[in-house]
Amino acid sequence: MENKTYNVVVVGYGGMGSYHGQLIAPVPGIALTGVYDIVEYRMELARSQGFRTYGSYGEVLADESVDVVVIATPNDVHKDLAIQALQAGKHVVCEKPVTVTSAELLEIVQAAKEADRVFMVHQNRRWDEDFLMVKNLVENKKAGEVFHVESRVQGANGIPGDWRQLKAYGGGMLLDWGVHLLDQLLLLTDSEIETVTASLSTILGTEVDDGFTAHIRFKDGLTAVIEVGTTNFIKLPRWYVKGTEGTAVIYDWDLSGEIVTRNQAVAHVEPKPIQAGVGLTKTMAPPSEESTIREPFERVPSKTESFYENLVSVIEGKAQPLVRNEQVLRVLMLIEAIFEAAETRSVVHRTI
Amino acid sequence: MENKTYNVVVVGYGGMGSYHGQLIAPVPGIALTGVYDIVEYRMELARSQGFRTYGSYGEVLADESVDVVVIATPNDVHKDLAIQALQAGKHVVCEKPVTVTSAELLEIVQAAKEADRVFMVHQNRRWDEDFLMVKNLVENKKAGEVFHVESRVQGANGIPGDWRQLKAYGGGMLLDWGVHLLDQLLLLTDSEIETVTASLSTILGTEVDDGFTAHIRFKDGLTAVIEVGTTNFIKLPRWYVKGTEGTAVIYDWDLSGEIVTRNQAVAHVEPKPIQAGVGLTKTMAPPSEESTIREPFERVPSKTESFYENLVSVIEGKAQPLVRNEQVLRVLMLIEAIFEAAETRSVVHRTI
Repeated sequence: MENKTYNVVVVGYGGMGSYHGQLIAPVPGIALTGVYDIVEYRMELARSQGFRTYGSYGEVLADESVDVVVIATPNDVHKDLAIQALQAGKHVVCEKPVTVTSAELLEIVQAAKEADRVFMVHQNRRWDEDFLMVKNLVENKKAGEVFHVESRVQGANGIPGDWRQLKAYGGGMLLDWGVHLLDQLLLLTDSEIETVTASLSTILGTEVDDGFTAHIRFKDGLTAVIEVGTTNFIKLPRWYVKGTEGTAVIYDWDLSGEIVTRNQAVAHVEPKPIQAGVGLTKTMAPPSEESTIREPFERVPSKTESFYENLVSVIEGKAQPLVRNEQVLRVLMLIEAIFEAAETRSVVHRTI
Repeated sequence: MENKTYNVVVVGYGGMGSYHGQLIAPVPGIALTGVYDIVEYRMELARSQGFRTYGSYGEVLADESVDVVVIATPNDVHKDLAIQALQAGKHVVCEKPVTVTSAELLEIVQAAKEADRVFMVHQNRRWDEDFLMVKNLVENKKAGEVFHVESRVQGANGIPGDWRQLKAYGGGMLLDWGVHLLDQLLLLTDSEIETVTASLSTILGTEVDDGFTAHIRFKDGLTAVIEVGTTNFIKLPRWYVKGTEGTAVIYDWDLSGEIVTRNQAVAHVEPKPIQAGVGLTKTMAPPSEESTIREPFERVPSKTESFYENLVSVIEGKAQPLVRNEQVLRVLMLIEAIFEAAETRSVVHRTI
C-alpha cells in the first residue's frame, strides 16, 4: 500500500471538472487518469490532454483500475451516479450541492456505509481565505464575542446561462452559491439553529431563484444574514461581523478589510455631534478617534492540508474527513428550511 | 389677519426644543416667544435668550397671546400635553415619535378635530437631502423600477444616556430613529404593506432596544430592509437601492454615492471570470466596464417650503399639511407590527 496511487475519473468535464484536475495534479498518491462526459467535445478535450475517456458510465465503473470517481455533473444526477459508483466499489467525491434534498444525501450515505467506501463532498470554499480570516476573528475574539454575521456575494451578471437556470437540474443561486455561504456559516459556531426566515429573488424571471436573503438565528443568540444576488450593480461588503468589542469588515475578494474596536485603554470619550441631513446627531456620530482602535483585518494562511491530500488520508484510514457528511446534511436541512420559509412567508422554527 | 404673527411656546427646552427655535426664527409670520420646561436651568437658559418663561403648563395654556404650542418633551407625555393644548384652543406641533401607540394618536387627532385646531408632527427628516435624492431616483426611474430599498443608520455610541434608555418614557431606537426611516420609506411608494418581520437588538443590556432590523414587503413586490444600530463600529451604506436597471448607493451623511446602471447602448458583454477565494467565478465578477454606466448620485435641492412656513399656511387655510396625520398614524401601525414581529418571532401579515 505504501506506493499506491489512487486513480481518479472525473464525470462531467465542464468548468468544475477540469478544476478538479488542477486540484489533484500536485497531490502525491492520487492522479487524474480518465474522464467521462455526455458531451463529445469535452471528451475530445480530455483526450487531447492525455486522459483516457470512456464510452459509458458503466465502462468507468467496470474499470478495476479506477479507485475514485469525481462527480461534477448537474445536481439532479449526483445521487444516482454516486450510489452506482459506491456499489461498484469506488470511493466518491461529489461536487456541491451534493443533492437537492437531505433525503437523497441520506441514501448516498447509506450506500457508502454498505459499500464501506469513502464519500466526500467538495465544499471547496472552506479553503477561502476570507472565510478563514472571519473564522480566526471569531475564534480568537478579535472583536469580542461575535453576535452577528452578514455574509454576502453579489454580482450583476445574472445566473449562468446553463442548467443552473433550470429547476429540474437543481439550478438557482441558493443551491449554487448559497450552499457555500451556509456551509461556512455553520462552521463559525457550535450552536444549533433556532429560526429561519428568507426571501427568494426572482427579478430575472427565471424559474429558479436568482438570489436570496436568509436570516438565521442560533440558539446561543448569534444572528446571521446570508445573501446572494445576481442583480447587484454595486456590492455590499463580502463580510460584515459585529462583536461585543467591535466590528469587522472584509470588503471584497481582494481581502481588503478592517477591524474597528473599542479602545479599552481610554475612558469613554463623548462623540462630537455631526450634521446628519437637516438635524444633528450624537448617536450616529463616529466614535471619537481616541476611543477606538482601527486595524487591518489580519490575513491567515490557508489550510495546510488540501482537499485531495485529506481524501488520500481518509481512504487510507489515517485521518477524519475535513468535510463530514453530517455537516453537509445539516446545510441541506438548512436550505430546505430556507425554501420553506420563503415559500410560506413564515418564520420556520426548527432545530437544525 | 394680513400681518398676524403667530406666537409659539416650546414645551421641553432640551436639544430638540432649542432646535425648533432655530427653525422658527427665519420664517415670517411666526415667532418663538416663550418656553416651559420642568428643569429650572433650561428655563434660566431660555430667559437669558430673551424668551418668556412660564410657572406651569396651565399658565402657557391660559396665555391668550400664545397661538402655537410645540411639544418637545419625552414621548410618554406627548398625548396629554397635546390634548390639553388643543382643548385650550392652541395649534400644536409635536416632536416624533408623536405617541408610542397608534391608539393614542387617534385620541389626539379626535381632540384636534373637535377643537378645530391644527395638529402637525415634526417629521423633520422628510427634508433630509439623502432621502430626497432617493425619492428623486425612485420617481424618475434613474435605476429603472426600484424593487428593493435598504435604509440604515448605524453608530457605535449606544443609546443617548437619558430617558431614551427607559421604556416608560417611550425610549429605544425603533421609536427614536426608526420612526424617521420608516416615515421616509412609506413616502417612496403608494403601495400598502403586506408582511413585516423584525428583530430587536438588546446587546447593550438596556430595557429598550438599542437597534433593530425590519424587513417589509409591500403588495406591489417592493421589499425593504430598515436598520438602526448603535453598536456598529463600521457602517454599512446609508442607502442601498436596487432597480431593474441598476443599483444606487448613498454611503454616508456627506451624500457621497453612485449609481451604476446597465448600458442600454451596448450588447451584453460577458464578464471575465475573477479569482474569488480558492475558486473562479464569472457570476460574481464585476460586469465589464463597457456594459455599465457609473454616475454620481444626483444631488437635489431640499424642499423649498420649510416645516414652519407650511404650518403658517395650514393654520391660515392656504395649504395642506406637508406631514399628514394619517401618514404618521400609518408609521405607528408599522412600528406596532415591527414590535409584534420581533416579540413573537413571526411574520406579521397585515395590510398597513
